[in-house]
Amino acid sequence: MDFEFLKKLIVPAQTKIIMLIMDGLGGLPQEPGGKTELETAYTPNLDKLAAQSALGLSQPAGPGITVGSGPGHLAIFGYDPVEYEIGRGALEALGVDFELCPEDVAARGNFCTVDENGLLTDRRAGRLPTEESAKLVELLGNVKADGVEFFLRPIKEHRFAFVMRAPGLCGALSDTDPLKLGVAAPPVRALKREADCAAEYVNQFICQARQVLKCQSPANMVLLRGFAKLPDLPKYKDLFGLNAAAIAVNGMYRGVSRLAGMTVLNVCGVTPADEFAALEQHWDEFDFFYIHIKQTDTCGENGDFPGKVRVIEEVDALIPRLLALDPDVVIVSGDHSSPAVMKSHSWHPVPTLLYSKLARPDGIAQFGERACARGSLGILPAKHVMPIALANAGRIAKYGA
Amino acid sequence: MDFEFLKKLIVPAQTKIIMLIMDGLGGLPQEPGGKTELETAYTPNLDKLAAQSALGLSQPAGPGITVGSGPGHLAIFGYDPVEYEIGRGALEALGVDFELCPEDVAARGNFCTVDENGLLTDRRAGRLPTEESAKLVELLGNVKADGVEFFLRPIKEHRFAFVMRAPGLCGALSDTDPLKLGVAAPPVRALKREADCAAEYVNQFICQARQVLKCQSPANMVLLRGFAKLPDLPKYKDLFGLNAAAIAVNGMYRGVSRLAGMTVLNVCGVTPADEFAALEQHWDEFDFFYIHIKQTDTCGENGDFPGKVRVIEEVDALIPRLLALDPDVVIVSGDHSSPAVMKSHSWHPVPTLLYSKLARPDGIAQFGERACARGSLGILPAKHVMPIALANAGRIAKYGA
Repeated sequence: MDFEFLKKLIVPAQTKIIMLIMDGLGGLPQEPGGKTELETAYTPNLDKLAAQSALGLSQPAGPGITVGSGPGHLAIFGYDPVEYEIGRGALEALGVDFELCPEDVAARGNFCTVDENGLLTDRRAGRLPTEESAKLVELLGNVKADGVEFFLRPIKEHRFAFVMRAPGLCGALSDTDPLKLGVAAPPVRALKREADCAAEYVNQFICQARQVLKCQSPANMVLLRGFAKLPDLPKYKDLFGLNAAAIAVNGMYRGVSRLAGMTVLNVCGVTPADEFAALEQHWDEFDFFYIHIKQTDTCGENGDFPGKVRVIEEVDALIPRLLALDPDVVIVSGDHSSPAVMKSHSWHPVPTLLYSKLARPDGIAQFGERACARGSLGILPAKHVMPIALANAGRIAKYGA
Repeated sequence: MDFEFLKKLIVPAQTKIIMLIMDGLGGLPQEPGGKTELETAYTPNLDKLAAQSALGLSQPAGPGITVGSGPGHLAIFGYDPVEYEIGRGALEALGVDFELCPEDVAARGNFCTVDENGLLTDRRAGRLPTEESAKLVELLGNVKADGVEFFLRPIKEHRFAFVMRAPGLCGALSDTDPLKLGVAAPPVRALKREADCAAEYVNQFICQARQVLKCQSPANMVLLRGFAKLPDLPKYKDLFGLNAAAIAVNGMYRGVSRLAGMTVLNVCGVTPADEFAALEQHWDEFDFFYIHIKQTDTCGENGDFPGKVRVIEEVDALIPRLLALDPDVVIVSGDHSSPAVMKSHSWHPVPTLLYSKLARPDGIAQFGERACARGSLGILPAKHVMPIALANAGRIAKYGA
């Protein structure tokens, strides 16, 4: 849907919407004729809610497309994930909870090993332990250049996030990682004229970083790739008229929701129950709440079918606390599927439940893939879920007379 | 879906996809409360396959649109049939198995009758018998002009295919058929400046054809219409990374699949079993196979309900041979519906089955219109079937992180 069309119809209301996202929710049966993770889980509360809801299957980025968590979240948040692309560098910075500004250019960094002639011998510096990597990141904190600020954050093993901040930077930069050994890492090149200045800054950084690291072993050099700025997303307040809050433990999800203009709430603890406590605590302050459950995806990616079932059951048991707040609209869905049998994200459409007093209930008292396939929301692009939720929340005016 | 977006995500794989198209597969009940042709047919093999598959109904060119076989095939092949239009002339040439080159301009020809003043008295020359028409086509084979080659092929009755070949021809040409009697057929006009040369060639052809035919009766003149070049389709190899083969007996389907870059295989014989034998014979050589079954449509167009049922049963009996090859993905669908009760193509969405080990099975053990309406593929544009098949074949990489 065209945002300009939708924006004109948005009206204020006193209603509240909860969007509960179980990461990688959709699954597959373990054996022919079997049930998926969600179908296997004992979910009396979600099933009861489903009976009063409209059900469907959402597709994040079109038929057959498997998405990463970035585009998957943009889609369920209401944005077209192909139009608004989040580059790798920006995603890595968000992932370590770095508060990226709109002008920042971010990249994914690797510590690597070069020989005395500067030729690459290991692109990952022997997968350097995270603690050692963190110390080197601290050392590199001393690299300075005029007119620009550099920020570095350790990620995991040899990986770190690189961010540079200066007015008017352009992120159209080539990678320095040649993706093979026995050659020197090339300097960064500007892919557009406007990026000349940014290229100059990066090359200054790399030059100094080499000096700083030259006596280190095995990590005596850095590679940078996936340069990107944040996509310029219209914000929830402007777009949907929503004062929105995000409840998520992991950096990336906190980052993506900040991108949509949500206020990211602090959670005391890391469990789903801790997240629901944050919801209860801040209930009066916002009119939209996004809650992110990470463990469903982690279990899916690990091939842990029973683990994923248990997380779903854990969330189900918390549903009464959510309903006790008397929300006007509840969305329960995922950002993509992560079937345990595939140990990865997948393209399969995602079970989606939309509850409100005004939803037309399908009368299907079960929340599962096949139940949702029979639902009245049909197979819908994930970006269509928010307009339907807004309508149910009395926040979209009539079009035409 | 945007091809540029999809192309970037395509990855190589060792998987094999079979697309079995029963032409005009979708049908209608003969009487209120009755079953369609596909629902009536005894199809134990397709039903068993359906139980392990995702089902849906595909729409070739949008709601309410009845398509010809050309656009119907482009759609199920993954192309937007409105964006990639196959002109009438090109379709006629493909239909008689003429190997149209990308630069050729084709038209549909009619033998007609004119009086001594050159005014049209019969646009179809009394629906000239095909044999007589074929003789006249041979006579016209003598027509020559400098810088261009003309090719003619008889079709049926008064109709023939006209093709001209020269470098840089443009097909934007007006028809010479005035669609009424008592007037002279106008010369061809160039509809764009670039077509001036092509118009000149056609008019030279018509002028000479009149001389050649002047003593014939009743067919003493020709009309040409529907000038068209082939649409420039991205090829299966470039677009999907597929080394594709087509197994079809009739010229038009061989032509359309050649257009998509498929290798058209020879079939010894004309029956579905002969086509399956070709599949078995060439199984190791390709990673995508399109198999076309014509008789379902022929029976539909003839109003032969039981005949269409029998053809479907004949194909069902061959399914075990197909599965014995252990394909990774199987699509069973049609290019459009052809209900016997309508004796024509129709707009009704087409039963579609997608089997793979990674498909999320709907658990519906029946392949029919109403069964498919309950399936998790929903009502989908036919052009979305290929991306889903490619995903199931492990040929689409994840989008974003």
